[in-house]
Amino acid sequence: MSAARLIGLDWGTTACRAYLIAADGAALERANGPGILKVEQGAFGGWLDSMVGGWIATHGVVPIILSGMIGSRQGWREAPYALCPAGPDDLVAALMRFEHNGLAITLVPGLATENDRMPDVMRGEETQILGALALSGRQDGLFLLPGTHSKWADVAGGRIVSFRTFMTGEVFGALKDHTILGRLMRAGADADGFERGVEEGAALGSAGALLNRLFATRSYGLMGQLAETALSDYLSGLLIGAEVAAATRQAQGPVTIIASAALAGRYTDALSRLGQENRLAPEDCVAGGHWRLARAAGLC
Amino acid sequence: MSAARLIGLDWGTTACRAYLIAADGAALERANGPGILKVEQGAFGGWLDSMVGGWIATHGVVPIILSGMIGSRQGWREAPYALCPAGPDDLVAALMRFEHNGLAITLVPGLATENDRMPDVMRGEETQILGALALSGRQDGLFLLPGTHSKWADVAGGRIVSFRTFMTGEVFGALKDHTILGRLMRAGADADGFERGVEEGAALGSAGALLNRLFATRSYGLMGQLAETALSDYLSGLLIGAEVAAATRQAQGPVTIIASAALAGRYTDALSRLGQENRLAPEDCVAGGHWRLARAAGLC
Repeated sequence: MSAARLIGLDWGTTACRAYLIAADGAALERANGPGILKVEQGAFGGWLDSMVGGWIATHGVVPIILSGMIGSRQGWREAPYALCPAGPDDLVAALMRFEHNGLAITLVPGLATENDRMPDVMRGEETQILGALALSGRQDGLFLLPGTHSKWADVAGGRIVSFRTFMTGEVFGALKDHTILGRLMRAGADADGFERGVEEGAALGSAGALLNRLFATRSYGLMGQLAETALSDYLSGLLIGAEVAAATRQAQGPVTIIASAALAGRYTDALSRLGQENRLAPEDCVAGGHWRLARAAGLC
Repeated sequence: MSAARLIGLDWGTTACRAYLIAADGAALERANGPGILKVEQGAFGGWLDSMVGGWIATHGVVPIILSGMIGSRQGWREAPYALCPAGPDDLVAALMRFEHNGLAITLVPGLATENDRMPDVMRGEETQILGALALSGRQDGLFLLPGTHSKWADVAGGRIVSFRTFMTGEVFGALKDHTILGRLMRAGADADGFERGVEEGAALGSAGALLNRLFATRSYGLMGQLAETALSDYLSGLLIGAEVAAATRQAQGPVTIIASAALAGRYTDALSRLGQENRLAPEDCVAGGHWRLARAAGLC
């Protein structure tokens, strides 16, 4: 077994994934904990101890590096955003350090950027992207991190040049659970409904056209053009199709998806359907990002 | 006082407005009742009696005409949709008649249409539009009926040629109350925030761009670019701006808004901001529509 050299935590809003990391950046062991919204005020240290205490007892004290919303105002400490374009050196220069029970903790800052005068922010995804770059040996490309809010990041020369947030996942949930569109829906999976949504969403000609086409989730059901069991997948496809068409408009080369295979599935389907080459990054690439930043910072 | 000749009810999902109508189509008296979703199974007749019983006692039996969601599957009786393009004669040919406690009831059908192979439906708005045409002496133009779901209808030669539903109002409520966007919002009215939203929403280049720009409701707040009291109006403006830009893309001449002055205000502001001439239809024009259809059907 390789010797443990680092502990990395990807501590987000809804979940925490902890990794015991070897000298080659590979994850030796994994642990899970609650996201920051589920942790009571001030209890972050206690949760850290419970997740990594056993590793430290076994392997001795190693540096600990944290990324994600744990560095936000609602987290443990607030680490000010670094600015795009940003490579590993820029993130290292903005690392925040503090001590907890004799353990040296390092916090990775999030990134801020601006597109068309709209500010945008990420926390945690920058570390996943750096890990994916390290593991693949790549320096350039378009990266997609799907989720409640999906992030699309442009990478060039090993630096994150800019990125955009799309609220697709959260909008889907709000529309399904809290508008009339959910009324006709019945549980079910329907690949044809999803594909129809993807194609129609990608073909919409304007932002307002989406506010109109959403209603098709109801009218297709009313008129018997889609089964009630297909309506949820149609709505999902409609939103993802619109997102993918906008985000890949200027894409050159394949899109790299950083996500679990389950989460990536819908985007893989949509990208392929729309003729966009894509590939999946290795799982746990966030641990590779932790390793890379810790090494560059001289922590291990 | 003019003699009462007709009773008209605009009976929708959330409210019912009843009118006692004179021989010139003007509303003599008004009453309110619950929308169909608030009426228990089978209780429509009782509610009708309670709203109009006093008028009949005073003025004698007159024909009663109903429009709106009362003619849907969830209403009193289901009146099959008439198809666009539809003028008064087409609606008259599709009227449904039945009797309730010796009273002759006539139900106005809704309208169905199709745009880019997407079916669309309305119930009640067709009667409002016919009333607005009758009261204004017009035969052509673009009509907007804002609400939870706003309807934009093209009228030519006195007939409703086609229409589109935009889910703007309901989407706004779901996003504000059920996504992270509501978290930073504080109560307040902010005309500048609304105008900024309208301009940015109208300028978006694609459907997917809206899923991205929604996040500005948060990032502008995070970065101090909009006050927390302006964020709700910014989001409202963003959605309405996107809707108006899409719906008026091929508009010729002014848009006629059919709504209470309070409800119309945001759309009047947005249309004017985007350089689109607009005017407000008279209040209670639905009673004019009831009168016109009842006359054409020989009811009064």
